[in-house]
Amino acid sequence: MEQHALERFAGLAVDFSANVQPGQIVAIEAETGMEPIVRAVAERAYERGARFVDPTYFDPYVKRARLQHAPDDTLEFVPEWYGKRMLQLGEEHAARIVFVPRVSPGILNGVDPKRAGRDQLPDLEERLEIINKRLVNWTIMPFPTQSWADLVYPELDGEAALSRLTEELFHVCRLDENDPVTAWRERKETLHSVASRLTDRRFDAIRLDGPGTELTVGLLPTSLWEGGSTTTVDGVEHMPNIPTEEVYTTPDPTRAEGIVRATKPLDVGGTIINGLEVRFEGGRAVDIQADTGAEVLRERAAYDADASRLGELALVDREGRIGTLGTTFYNTLLDENAASHIALGNAYEITVGPEDVPNINKSAIHIDFMIGGDDVQVRGITGDGEQVPVLVNGTWQI
Amino acid sequence: MEQHALERFAGLAVDFSANVQPGQIVAIEAETGMEPIVRAVAERAYERGARFVDPTYFDPYVKRARLQHAPDDTLEFVPEWYGKRMLQLGEEHAARIVFVPRVSPGILNGVDPKRAGRDQLPDLEERLEIINKRLVNWTIMPFPTQSWADLVYPELDGEAALSRLTEELFHVCRLDENDPVTAWRERKETLHSVASRLTDRRFDAIRLDGPGTELTVGLLPTSLWEGGSTTTVDGVEHMPNIPTEEVYTTPDPTRAEGIVRATKPLDVGGTIINGLEVRFEGGRAVDIQADTGAEVLRERAAYDADASRLGELALVDREGRIGTLGTTFYNTLLDENAASHIALGNAYEITVGPEDVPNINKSAIHIDFMIGGDDVQVRGITGDGEQVPVLVNGTWQI
Repeated sequence: MEQHALERFAGLAVDFSANVQPGQIVAIEAETGMEPIVRAVAERAYERGARFVDPTYFDPYVKRARLQHAPDDTLEFVPEWYGKRMLQLGEEHAARIVFVPRVSPGILNGVDPKRAGRDQLPDLEERLEIINKRLVNWTIMPFPTQSWADLVYPELDGEAALSRLTEELFHVCRLDENDPVTAWRERKETLHSVASRLTDRRFDAIRLDGPGTELTVGLLPTSLWEGGSTTTVDGVEHMPNIPTEEVYTTPDPTRAEGIVRATKPLDVGGTIINGLEVRFEGGRAVDIQADTGAEVLRERAAYDADASRLGELALVDREGRIGTLGTTFYNTLLDENAASHIALGNAYEITVGPEDVPNINKSAIHIDFMIGGDDVQVRGITGDGEQVPVLVNGTWQI
Repeated sequence: MEQHALERFAGLAVDFSANVQPGQIVAIEAETGMEPIVRAVAERAYERGARFVDPTYFDPYVKRARLQHAPDDTLEFVPEWYGKRMLQLGEEHAARIVFVPRVSPGILNGVDPKRAGRDQLPDLEERLEIINKRLVNWTIMPFPTQSWADLVYPELDGEAALSRLTEELFHVCRLDENDPVTAWRERKETLHSVASRLTDRRFDAIRLDGPGTELTVGLLPTSLWEGGSTTTVDGVEHMPNIPTEEVYTTPDPTRAEGIVRATKPLDVGGTIINGLEVRFEGGRAVDIQADTGAEVLRERAAYDADASRLGELALVDREGRIGTLGTTFYNTLLDENAASHIALGNAYEITVGPEDVPNINKSAIHIDFMIGGDDVQVRGITGDGEQVPVLVNGTWQI
């Protein structure tokens, strides 16, 4: 990527997405090979008055070596200092900028999926704690890598694939706009406004219907919808995801019934899951089927007591830039913003009222997967059973 | 580097230098760009039964951005989790494998040396604590990088320079032997035996004389000499440095008198110091002069109360492989093994008896610099003033 493009990318990350404040510690997390963007972000952050920039490179090939060779009973082990660092980022009220993928898709191909499911790194449980407490202004953004590009555009040769991925990521990150920040401010206002109207409706449940999907997800009495930006305890507004096209809430973990079919392939820690179909009963994923890779998701869903329950429900309209591209990115950050989705595992405390915090799902995992595109119809179900159209053919009805 | 060469390198690091034990956590520290050796070491360590491999890549360009842009009063700041991780490696009795350089020489050229002297990363004070307590089986080894090769062989083009550096590092690491481990076992025995005879002599001081050098360094009553391998509290033998050609001890920090001239350029955290000359009085470096880069060393020597006192004295004979090459590597691990040397700053507790531990030098810095080659004559001075030849023209006399 050219220096000018890197600086544009870094500017959006530091000045707007994470909204780095003078005097802050800035953690940057990336995959090995992403040095150019990490260095551009570091420079921008120091120019903006950061106190310290702490880059962490995750090496997916060391993870691969672990999954291939390490003793079976060690795969869940994570050194104490990994989680402590994350909690200390919270204590310091740091900024955190994450570039994905941190395990480029394809790198773990051929690894025993049962073993792969047991090593959750680079994800850390403690990450959810500092997010829920709103201690850190954070953002996740995509950065193009060669092995990722090769998977997304198998019909192109290496260089062309990488340049195509770079171009599409620039487009979906609105970096091809004259003023990306203004473009994101506008999109953020739309998402805020839809989220606020959804919260006002106080639906008891959301019903999703589409090809292979008939799912009802219960909401909690205080479930709130959010979208676009969020704000830390210190009042620092930031964009947790760029791109983001979703509004989301925390569901009732005891109430999910029906079947969902994922219309796009899903990348879970480097393994591709194709043709995923999940059946829910009493809030639990009781049956997980897929054409490839089902084992990895089954392993994750059995990771702890409530890993098979829902921690998130998100809706996406057709105005986003990802769905219209038609590209499958094999990356949750992008693919989840092409379509409405749910997540197994841990829930965000920030999208319920304080009285419901004890009732939300708790788990060490959080795995999003897409339910479908504009052909999935979404209705809200009120406390007295009335069904209200929410999304029809990808357009908001409320 | 070819896969076969990487595996040979990794095998020496894991099986012999660090001597990784089954069940251990293995920390690998390297510069960004050294992924090939880090991955080869990770694979070998897992094959050997490591519990977890924790690679850390230090990014020298992020350090450069800091030195260029960060506010002046932040340059000494190090996040709490850096030191805590190091101490926890000690608590876990981990293995630690470090590849140098971690800031390839030349990368910090042009940076204000006063500012450069205040940021000691990637060095951490806590490293010395776990070494002194012998908690970790550790090793430091060199790995070739392009910017390093360009500095060492300015007369060669990029590719030829890198391939020459690779070849010379293989030679000095004895990786060009049929059986590198046996070659190192033999060299280690020589160093052990010299060290043991030096310890038995109980010299009161060591006198070094050569071109531009007339220095007397006092020893402590219990100063011990070591060389080659050392052993952890758990009895794991390891080679702290590969290559290593030195025997070393901990001097009396209150007694150093005279002048030393460094015959080779010295790399201090990425800045090259040429023509260094240091005058000692009462144990302190009271005057530091150089043709280039003197400021960086002055800054380090003023880092804390005793940074200007000596923490190490080491002697090198002419049988080593580095001096005979005639190459200046601009890297302490290599250049210090070409010649006898001293270090400013923190002392190793392991080379004195327990009763002298309170008397050794304490500092947050430790900077080695070379005194000369085979033209430096070394004598031991006994308690009653007798002068005993130790090294004459690079050959042991005791």
